Amino acid sequence: MTIKVHGGVFSTATLRVRVCLNEKSLDYEFIPVDLRSGHHKQDPFLSLNPFGQIPAFQDGDLNLFESRAITRYIAHSYTGEGVPLVSSDAKKAAVEDVWAEVEAQRYEPPAAKLTWELGIKPILGMATDDDVVKAQEAELAKVLDVYEARLAQSKYLGGDAFSLADLHHLPTLKYLMASPVKAVFEACPRVAAWAADIMARPSWQKVLADC
Amino acid sequence: MTIKVHGGVFSTATLRVRVCLNEKSLDYEFIPVDLRSGHHKQDPFLSLNPFGQIPAFQDGDLNLFESRAITRYIAHSYTGEGVPLVSSDAKKAAVEDVWAEVEAQRYEPPAAKLTWELGIKPILGMATDDDVVKAQEAELAKVLDVYEARLAQSKYLGGDAFSLADLHHLPTLKYLMASPVKAVFEACPRVAAWAADIMARPSWQKVLADC
Repeated sequence: MTIKVHGGVFSTATLRVRVCLNEKSLDYEFIPVDLRSGHHKQDPFLSLNPFGQIPAFQDGDLNLFESRAITRYIAHSYTGEGVPLVSSDAKKAAVEDVWAEVEAQRYEPPAAKLTWELGIKPILGMATDDDVVKAQEAELAKVLDVYEARLAQSKYLGGDAFSLADLHHLPTLKYLMASPVKAVFEACPRVAAWAADIMARPSWQKVLADC
Repeated sequence: MTIKVHGGVFSTATLRVRVCLNEKSLDYEFIPVDLRSGHHKQDPFLSLNPFGQIPAFQDGDLNLFESRAITRYIAHSYTGEGVPLVSSDAKKAAVEDVWAEVEAQRYEPPAAKLTWELGIKPILGMATDDDVVKAQEAELAKVLDVYEARLAQSKYLGGDAFSLADLHHLPTLKYLMASPVKAVFEACPRVAAWAADIMARPSWQKVLADC
């Protein structure tokens, strides 16, 4: 087993890498990082990720960090394994990549703040800031309106096939669909159906079972 | 001429696409979008970018948006033209992509806020918020400390060759190096030298001459 994922069971970025590996049916070793002791802010972890954040990823002698760069590497390097997560057609792949950027640049900022307020703070015994939730729900709703129109054109965000553009959403969906933000998704019927569809994938169910 | 870039001369995301096309020695038609009249928030522009933001990109019948997805498409689709912006070695390309993600996820948030406060607001006759500048300079400094260590290991952020990981920084560098934030860069000598090096590239000088 040469693939190693150093991360945390609650970390959305770690979950993103794990579900990608499952889609590719790749075995890997999960190495929990002791965040409470701050091991990710010290050597030797800093040699894996100089920003001191999880996850870090190793495939043989290759060290990577940043979850979306890791998933792109996996998708492009293991094309013969599991589910194709990137189209073999360059133009279709470019459109998938546009929607993956939309996730990173437009969906993630409100989704991450809502995940922190409603998913992680309760685990840590911290109080949710309702004003932040209200403002970020409004931001998220604007993004989901665009998704609703997009999903009238194609089954998945990137096109007719499930791709990284969809997969990257799964970790924050885990927290948001178990919170009051679910109502924001349910206001967009195509988005709600898409979320239910991708969350039912065996790759994601296996991540949940493994955590 | 089949490549079209719809954008604005002050827009960092538009500049990112233009410098990439110049590196590839690709001709393109620049189509200014009338932002003051809000043309980007209306049809037909919304059919090119449903978020109503610039740039939008057309290559024949292919429509793309999100500047970093556009540059990846250009780099991967025009491998035989101009400067290689992505390594042909899969592992080296993955490391370049990690540092491109670092730009998007860690450098861009403070750099974009500083660009707005110090580069764009003055153009629009708006007052700079000094508290925002101070806070974002501190955030940027943390990122540049990591860059300084990285550039002790390799000439460019992604490795020994200039790549998209470097190129994506150029538009915000344009504004920040002409502002007091330049001192934050100059506190990191390798970063300052790297910035001067990439800003001297003919591809970038041509963008500046064309704007």
